[in-house]
Amino acid sequence: MLEPKNYHNPFTFYLYVAMNMTQLQLIFLGTGGSWPSVKRNVSSIAIKRGSEILLFDCGEGTQRQFQKSHLSYMQIKNIFITHYHGDHFLGLPGLIQTMQLNDRNIPLHIYGPEGIHDLVNDVVSLGYFKPTYEILSHEVADSDIVDFKEFEIHVLKVSHGVPSLAYSLVEKERPGKFNKPKALELNIPEGPLFSKLQKGHTIKLKDGTEIHPEMVMGPKRPGRKIVYSGDTRPVETMIEFAKHADVLIHEGTFDSSLNDISYQYGHSTVEEAAIIAKNAEVKMLFITHISPRYYESEDLKKEAEKKFNKVIIPKDFDTFTIPLKK
Amino acid sequence: MLEPKNYHNPFTFYLYVAMNMTQLQLIFLGTGGSWPSVKRNVSSIAIKRGSEILLFDCGEGTQRQFQKSHLSYMQIKNIFITHYHGDHFLGLPGLIQTMQLNDRNIPLHIYGPEGIHDLVNDVVSLGYFKPTYEILSHEVADSDIVDFKEFEIHVLKVSHGVPSLAYSLVEKERPGKFNKPKALELNIPEGPLFSKLQKGHTIKLKDGTEIHPEMVMGPKRPGRKIVYSGDTRPVETMIEFAKHADVLIHEGTFDSSLNDISYQYGHSTVEEAAIIAKNAEVKMLFITHISPRYYESEDLKKEAEKKFNKVIIPKDFDTFTIPLKK
Repeated sequence: MLEPKNYHNPFTFYLYVAMNMTQLQLIFLGTGGSWPSVKRNVSSIAIKRGSEILLFDCGEGTQRQFQKSHLSYMQIKNIFITHYHGDHFLGLPGLIQTMQLNDRNIPLHIYGPEGIHDLVNDVVSLGYFKPTYEILSHEVADSDIVDFKEFEIHVLKVSHGVPSLAYSLVEKERPGKFNKPKALELNIPEGPLFSKLQKGHTIKLKDGTEIHPEMVMGPKRPGRKIVYSGDTRPVETMIEFAKHADVLIHEGTFDSSLNDISYQYGHSTVEEAAIIAKNAEVKMLFITHISPRYYESEDLKKEAEKKFNKVIIPKDFDTFTIPLKK
Repeated sequence: MLEPKNYHNPFTFYLYVAMNMTQLQLIFLGTGGSWPSVKRNVSSIAIKRGSEILLFDCGEGTQRQFQKSHLSYMQIKNIFITHYHGDHFLGLPGLIQTMQLNDRNIPLHIYGPEGIHDLVNDVVSLGYFKPTYEILSHEVADSDIVDFKEFEIHVLKVSHGVPSLAYSLVEKERPGKFNKPKALELNIPEGPLFSKLQKGHTIKLKDGTEIHPEMVMGPKRPGRKIVYSGDTRPVETMIEFAKHADVLIHEGTFDSSLNDISYQYGHSTVEEAAIIAKNAEVKMLFITHISPRYYESEDLKKEAEKKFNKVIIPKDFDTFTIPLKK
C-alpha cells in the first residue's frame, strides 16, 4: 500500500534504471482549488515516468512550484489541461516563456478539450512573447486514447459546466517474470541469451534447438494506472474509467456541509470522491483541489474515510512512488 | 535613515491615522528578474499609502505573494505596469480573476505604456473568464502626470528594447506645522478653531478679528517621493526624474562582470544603478530585479556600495515605512 510520504531518492531512480524498470512518481505541485492560499498552490500534478514528466493542469505559479521541488520543468514533454478555468491553466504562459529563456528547443505538446487551439494561441501571444520552439496543441474528447508507445492516455468527459475532461495514464503490459530455473533446465547458457529472451526474441542454442520466449517467461504483467478527475461533479462513468486504478486523484473541493455550493459550482465533496473511489475499487484515493477555506485537511480526511479508507489528502510537494505490479 | 527591516505593525498604522498623517509603506513582493527562483518571485512592488494599495508590476504569482504578506489584494485600486515582458505582468489574469471570486465590485485601473488596452483586453479574456467588475486600462507616456488628489504619478520613458516606463509617486505638499504659542498669543481659544486653521480655513474670533491660516501655520512641508525604474539600461533622464527622491527602486539585474549581457538584454548592473542613485542624490537606493543566477546578494550589495553607500537589496516581503518629511 502507498504510504503518504514526501521524499526524493535519486538512488531509487537509478536502481529502477539498472533493473530495467520504469519508476513512476506522482508529485503534487498544487493541491488547492479556485485560488492559491499560503499552504496550497492552484492545480498542478506532475507524473514522472522514467526521465519524462507529464504535467496535468498548470495553475498560476506552477513554474515556481517546479523550482521548489526536485523536478525540472525542462523534462516536461506533454501537458494535459482538464478545462479552461484560470486556476488550471494560468501557469502556462510563464512556464512556456521560462522554458524558452532556458533554451528549450524540443517541441512541447499541450492537450485539452475543445478550445485548446485558441487557448494555446492566446497564452503564447501575450505581451511581446514569440515562441522560438514548437508548441503543439491537441484537442481530445471523450473516449479518446492517445498512444505514447509505453503507455496510453485515456480521456473521459466529466461534468463541470464548461467542457472538462478527466485523464487516465494506463501503462501497457510489461513482460512476465523470467523463469531462470526453467531456462537452465533447457540448457540455455547464462548470459546475453537470457536478455534476448526477456526482450521477446526467439533464440537458437548451439545444438540447433529453438527457444521461444513464452517457454521461459511467465504471463505478461499489467501496467500501472493513474486517473485524474480534474474538476467535476461525481459522475457514474468515472467508476468504470477508474476501475481498479492504482491511484485515483479525484477533486474534493468541499466537505458535505457545503453540498449545495459544491453542486452549484460543479464540484465534488470529499465524501462523493470517496464513494467514487470505493465503487471503482481503486487501490488508493488522493483528494485534491481543496477549497482555500480549509486551512487544515484532517476533518476532510475523516469525512472521506467513512466511505473509503484508503485515502490521502496530499499537501503541495508530496511525492509518491507507484510500485510495479507483480 | 531607512533601516532594512521586515515588519508589520498595525499599531503604527492606527497611530498615523490618529495623528492625521498618512503612512507610506513599501512592500517588495517579487524581487527577482526574468523568471522566479526559490528565493525570489518575479517583479511586483506594493506601495501602501494609508489604506490604499498601488501595485507596480504584477509578475506571475503576485496574488500568492499577497496571501503570504500582511496585505490584502482587495485594497488595490491602481496597477502600474512598466512593460510587457512576462515577468512583469503575467500575474494580472490570476489576480483579476481572484478579485472577482472574492466579490470585487469596485473598478480596477491598470496603467501602462502603449499597448495597454490590447494587453488588458487579452488578460481578461483568457479561457472562460468574463469580468463582472470594471477593469479600466489607461495608456500613459513619457512626461505624463496622473493626478490622484493627494499624490501624483509621474511617468518617464526608459530604455529596454520594448516600450518601457519608469514611475514616480510624488506626494503633494502637506500643511506646515501649527504654531500653537503664536495662536495662543493671538487669543485664539484652544479647540475646534485650531483644527479649522490647520485645515486651511480663515476664522473669525468673537471680537471680530479675522485670522488667516498663514498667520499660525509654518511653511508647507514637501511630500515623499518614491521612484521605480522598471527594467532599463541606465538613462541620463533618470537622474532628474529621481532627483532627491526618498526612495529610488532601480533594477540591477547583473553584476558588472556581466556588463555585456546586461547591455545586450537592456538591463542595468548594480554598479550602474548605484551611479544613477548617487547622481540623483536620493536618500535610499533599493536594487531589485536580481537575476536568478545570484543565490545570495551580498556581493552585489558590496559592488553597489562602492558607488553609493545607502543601498539595500531587498528580499521578497521586506517592508519599509517611508518617514514623513519635517
